[in-house]
Amino acid sequence: MIKVGIVGGTGYTGVELLRLLASHPQVEVTVITSRSEKGVRVDEMYPNLRGHYDTLAFSEPDAEVLAACDAVFFATPHGVAHALAGDLLARGTRVIDLSADFRIKDADVWAEWYGQPHGAPELLGEAVYGLPEVNRDAIREARLIAVPGCYPTSVQLGLIPLLEAGLIETDNIIADCKSAVSGAGRGAKVGSLLCEAGESMKAYGASGHRHLPEITQGLDMAAGSAVGLTFVPHLTPMIRGIHSTLYPRLSGFSGTLEDLQALFEQRYADHPAVDVMPLGSHPETRSVRGTNLCRIALHRPGNGDTLVVLSVIDNLVKGASGQAIQNLNLMFGLDEMTGIGAPAMMP
Amino acid sequence: MIKVGIVGGTGYTGVELLRLLASHPQVEVTVITSRSEKGVRVDEMYPNLRGHYDTLAFSEPDAEVLAACDAVFFATPHGVAHALAGDLLARGTRVIDLSADFRIKDADVWAEWYGQPHGAPELLGEAVYGLPEVNRDAIREARLIAVPGCYPTSVQLGLIPLLEAGLIETDNIIADCKSAVSGAGRGAKVGSLLCEAGESMKAYGASGHRHLPEITQGLDMAAGSAVGLTFVPHLTPMIRGIHSTLYPRLSGFSGTLEDLQALFEQRYADHPAVDVMPLGSHPETRSVRGTNLCRIALHRPGNGDTLVVLSVIDNLVKGASGQAIQNLNLMFGLDEMTGIGAPAMMP
Amino acid sequence: MIKVGIVGGTGYTGVELLRLLASHPQVEVTVITSRSEKGVRVDEMYPNLRGHYDTLAFSEPDAEVLAACDAVFFATPHGVAHALAGDLLARGTRVIDLSADFRIKDADVWAEWYGQPHGAPELLGEAVYGLPEVNRDAIREARLIAVPGCYPTSVQLGLIPLLEAGLIETDNIIADCKSAVSGAGRGAKVGSLLCEAGESMKAYGASGHRHLPEITQGLDMAAGSAVGLTFVPHLTPMIRGIHSTLYPRLSGFSGTLEDLQALFEQRYADHPAVDVMPLGSHPETRSVRGTNLCRIALHRPGNGDTLVVLSVIDNLVKGASGQAIQNLNLMFGLDEMTGIGAPAMMP
Amino acid sequence: MIKVGIVGGTGYTGVELLRLLASHPQVEVTVITSRSEKGVRVDEMYPNLRGHYDTLAFSEPDAEVLAACDAVFFATPHGVAHALAGDLLARGTRVIDLSADFRIKDADVWAEWYGQPHGAPELLGEAVYGLPEVNRDAIREARLIAVPGCYPTSVQLGLIPLLEAGLIETDNIIADCKSAVSGAGRGAKVGSLLCEAGESMKAYGASGHRHLPEITQGLDMAAGSAVGLTFVPHLTPMIRGIHSTLYPRLSGFSGTLEDLQALFEQRYADHPAVDVMPLGSHPETRSVRGTNLCRIALHRPGNGDTLVVLSVIDNLVKGASGQAIQNLNLMFGLDEMTGIGAPAMMP
Repeated sequence: MIKVGIVGGTGYTGVELLRLLASHPQVEVTVITSRSEKGVRVDEMYPNLRGHYDTLAFSEPDAEVLAACDAVFFATPHGVAHALAGDLLARGTRVIDLSADFRIKDADVWAEWYGQPHGAPELLGEAVYGLPEVNRDAIREARLIAVPGCYPTSVQLGLIPLLEAGLIETDNIIADCKSAVSGAGRGAKVGSLLCEAGESMKAYGASGHRHLPEITQGLDMAAGSAVGLTFVPHLTPMIRGIHSTLYPRLSGFSGTLEDLQALFEQRYADHPAVDVMPLGSHPETRSVRGTNLCRIALHRPGNGDTLVVLSVIDNLVKGASGQAIQNLNLMFGLDEMTGIGAPAMMP
Repeated sequence: MIKVGIVGGTGYTGVELLRLLASHPQVEVTVITSRSEKGVRVDEMYPNLRGHYDTLAFSEPDAEVLAACDAVFFATPHGVAHALAGDLLARGTRVIDLSADFRIKDADVWAEWYGQPHGAPELLGEAVYGLPEVNRDAIREARLIAVPGCYPTSVQLGLIPLLEAGLIETDNIIADCKSAVSGAGRGAKVGSLLCEAGESMKAYGASGHRHLPEITQGLDMAAGSAVGLTFVPHLTPMIRGIHSTLYPRLSGFSGTLEDLQALFEQRYADHPAVDVMPLGSHPETRSVRGTNLCRIALHRPGNGDTLVVLSVIDNLVKGASGQAIQNLNLMFGLDEMTGIGAPAMMP
Repeated sequence: MIKVGIVGGTGYTGVELLRLLASHPQVEVTVITSRSEKGVRVDEMYPNLRGHYDTLAFSEPDAEVLAACDAVFFATPHGVAHALAGDLLARGTRVIDLSADFRIKDADVWAEWYGQPHGAPELLGEAVYGLPEVNRDAIREARLIAVPGCYPTSVQLGLIPLLEAGLIETDNIIADCKSAVSGAGRGAKVGSLLCEAGESMKAYGASGHRHLPEITQGLDMAAGSAVGLTFVPHLTPMIRGIHSTLYPRLSGFSGTLEDLQALFEQRYADHPAVDVMPLGSHPETRSVRGTNLCRIALHRPGNGDTLVVLSVIDNLVKGASGQAIQNLNLMFGLDEMTGIGAPAMMP
Repeated sequence: MIKVGIVGGTGYTGVELLRLLASHPQVEVTVITSRSEKGVRVDEMYPNLRGHYDTLAFSEPDAEVLAACDAVFFATPHGVAHALAGDLLARGTRVIDLSADFRIKDADVWAEWYGQPHGAPELLGEAVYGLPEVNRDAIREARLIAVPGCYPTSVQLGLIPLLEAGLIETDNIIADCKSAVSGAGRGAKVGSLLCEAGESMKAYGASGHRHLPEITQGLDMAAGSAVGLTFVPHLTPMIRGIHSTLYPRLSGFSGTLEDLQALFEQRYADHPAVDVMPLGSHPETRSVRGTNLCRIALHRPGNGDTLVVLSVIDNLVKGASGQAIQNLNLMFGLDEMTGIGAPAMMP
């Protein structure tokens, strides 16, 4: 059994790690930390886990204890992994960071968007961006993984095949993204109340959002040049799910929609977490709820130059905890979908 | 008192007319028709109306009875107003049609999108497109009004100032629109069930939707030339509301966002149903729920050429029944917001 | 115009007062206080009010300023009205308290359930319990009103006719009540998050809830003796509404369900805020959403001794702000439904 | 591998069987029938199943084909299993019926509540009521299982320990039950639309509901005498879950709440699908969403005679498809929670 620890396990990505790992045949959670809930059993705080973690309780973070794990997940606000990752790596424990700490390669860009200096620039070189559909081989060898953000996962997977193939204009792609409320975390904020976020919809961060530099970094890589992206996130009255609607503009492409469909199917043929749906499909976020899948569908309205790519994920699974486990599986030589392959619940 | 009739009053736009008109000081609903619910009292079918319509019951449509009204609303599927409007107009009764029957000026385009021949092309000439923010004077004199669709209202109001001023590219505007489920009507469809549409989000009609030609007709008019629009509607798990996110691209514009804000404020200064919110705002659909308002906010990410216009309405009010009453008010010389000015409920 | 002030206007009952009073023909809100939001315009905090309160802003509470009002609403946590009401009354300003401060006649009982000494026991004598269906005459003469709680309103209105007529056992009545999440207020609590309270249901306070003594106080009065009540509140995934299902047991009653229906209809014939629905009805909470109504329906399963009374209200209107205005109307000689008579929105 | 068939697989209990069986290590679904969807692949109709049933398609019901299965589930409206079960049993195929066809032992009572004659009274003798917490031994030997209804499961599990121990009055128990909308099935009914059932709550069938005789039959058995039950179901705006609040009245009991807690814990100690939560708990329906669990908590308000039992299940799992699989597991000698043991998703 692979022994894993979870730092900061009281939020939604923490409990989602626990839920998924409860069904993972090769992993044992040996430690989970939380300063505020120290001593509380995880199934006391999260009754859905009753019967699955009969003794596990939150403990004060302790480097010694964490270092006894084969791998440690960070399900923490930004900044925490900066402080602890180096020590764990030095002791031979692999680190899978679900926060934004190591996602952006340029420490200055990170500092600008997160409003504080980067806390561990010396580790940026070896940190691997944990998007298996792009970096699978590197992930297998990695000691430190930066798990991609939720919006970045859905947007990148929907655009990468087109960018890699050089089929679209790169100066002005529109990404209109709709997220469930759990994307805002389990913190007690007025804006996340059922009475505030329910029965309503709104954009937020329309003038600029922290996920933008992470997304463009990945798109730049795929395109081999700088990509211009307009990214507008929206808050949607549901618990889980992201729906990204992407509007790339074809450029110098004389093929058909069927050709593009074939391109996507081929690109992801060997990637079990991406499902390219048949032409004509409109993926629903619920079809991936609780799963580590990204479902994608292509449309070409009026047979024009504007392509519409629909890309849906569960923000807490493929957009966070599931993808973290997918990385763990790869790092430890397991099939990448081990423990994260159950179908979505419908309805 | 203005005597009005409602044809096809059992759907959501019908009951919304009844709700709003119950508080209208100058209107009396004298007849409401429904073949299927003939004889049933409206407050039996819609208990929210108990105490407001103590005797009104659904009756078989009867031209004689309808013609005794000063104005008749059609809250019917397409095709019905085609059959009845001419007769009513001939008898001196004004017609306010909430369906799509008279929205598109070109009968052939209508026939193509609605899959049947246009039933009253001879009336298209005098039909006025009932968007008061564009056609107020014509509405005052009109006998036959085509009330705009919900998506078209929110998209046009968000783009018209820019098109009229010639500030944006017109070949490729993106309109990403999110609608509540009531937009699909009160029909018993599997896709509108709480268990199907709840806790999920999806695009639909991504390859083409009936509202497209109506929208482009209005945009063309404002631009003075043909506008290319990519319009993708989405189904959102809420009861009321449309959120349109519009991505026009500035062209030959050397001004600031503040200039654009001033342009919008000026354009709608005299239009009480449009609220241009302060810079930095992100309008919520709930802020217009139950009201005849369109709230608009502007963003310019990274100070670039792509503008983001956020435009929200209640699809059943400013997107249907409220706008119909706004037209009625104008046709009968009343203040245009009479009876439709109450604030939205929050939360 | 009646000049009114609102103390503590940032919560849900505060904004609901503002929404309803915006349409009230005889009331002007001249002052609204909030320490935390001092200086902020109300329509800045609550965009639904844009266009309705063009100058009103939150101010520091100031006895002088409040005393210039004809009446002051307290939309505050418990304890605040204790501190301020006496002074206002002494200056001739009437007080309508939406909090629990003056609901319970026995200061010791109050202290026990609210965990602090009663702050103004000297005012308990003149405080009138503002349930117009019971105390209408006293309300007309009152200077200090204790607006009933939401659960207490729905439960009392459903049981009072039976208790007054002496038709039911009084030792063991069951009240199973389901409340929307807005009942928990606008405070940032984890339990009120959309992701916590959505798509789920639970009981709370099953072993004892603060509304219990308020309810039994009212039932005792109606029965003329002590009533035993088991009251279990539940949290329901919706924004507004309370559904109380009451299970009184008939005792020494040889009549029919129709007789009981007649009893209810007669009891409330002169009370416009109570709607006794026809036999066979199942009132929906949405049928009273946003309105000052309580709709009631009676059932008698298997023609047995257990009666089922269904009683629904909007917790923020008839359960709080609407009822407060109904009291204001009575105190100032207006029709009691002035400004609070618009029909519910459906859907 | 156990070969199973599903008759009538297009509804919510059908797709839930497919979802759960996709993770069952010992079961293979070899046939699924639907007249209306004949020829359609299951993952075409239910995209959540893409990748899990690569070839399975709906077929016309065919006795020959079904008889080749080891067991057949009926996920059909009532009446269908009556017609087909006998033939399958005769051919040696076991039948697990999720409909109401064999739940009620008295054919006349069944006929009265379902409005048609019982279609297979000759099978009632051998049909086993599939509540494993009561009939586990009989289930192991059974050929024909009547899977309990959703309300009956949650109500019986909450009351049986008390009735078996003879601790409560049996003439007048109150069961106030709240169900999610999926309990109404996937049929296109107006009342199940998101815009009708959303943001609202109501009782239904308050004067009598088909599940009543099934519940009392089970309670009578546990009590050893006829039990009087008042059962009021409510429709709640959520997709999955039942919350039953039960109000039994203690009789001749001189013990403590702790004693009752011990009684429940002991009664279900050997039953993995029932979780008796610690004293003071308020189980949430989401804590069992997607799982085959019933969570129960006890309260005794004011230390009086009225006990409050809170009992929650997922209506589609422990209330239908999961319990059906629990029965299958027992019939085929497997651990009863095989394939149905994953924890609930939170949030």
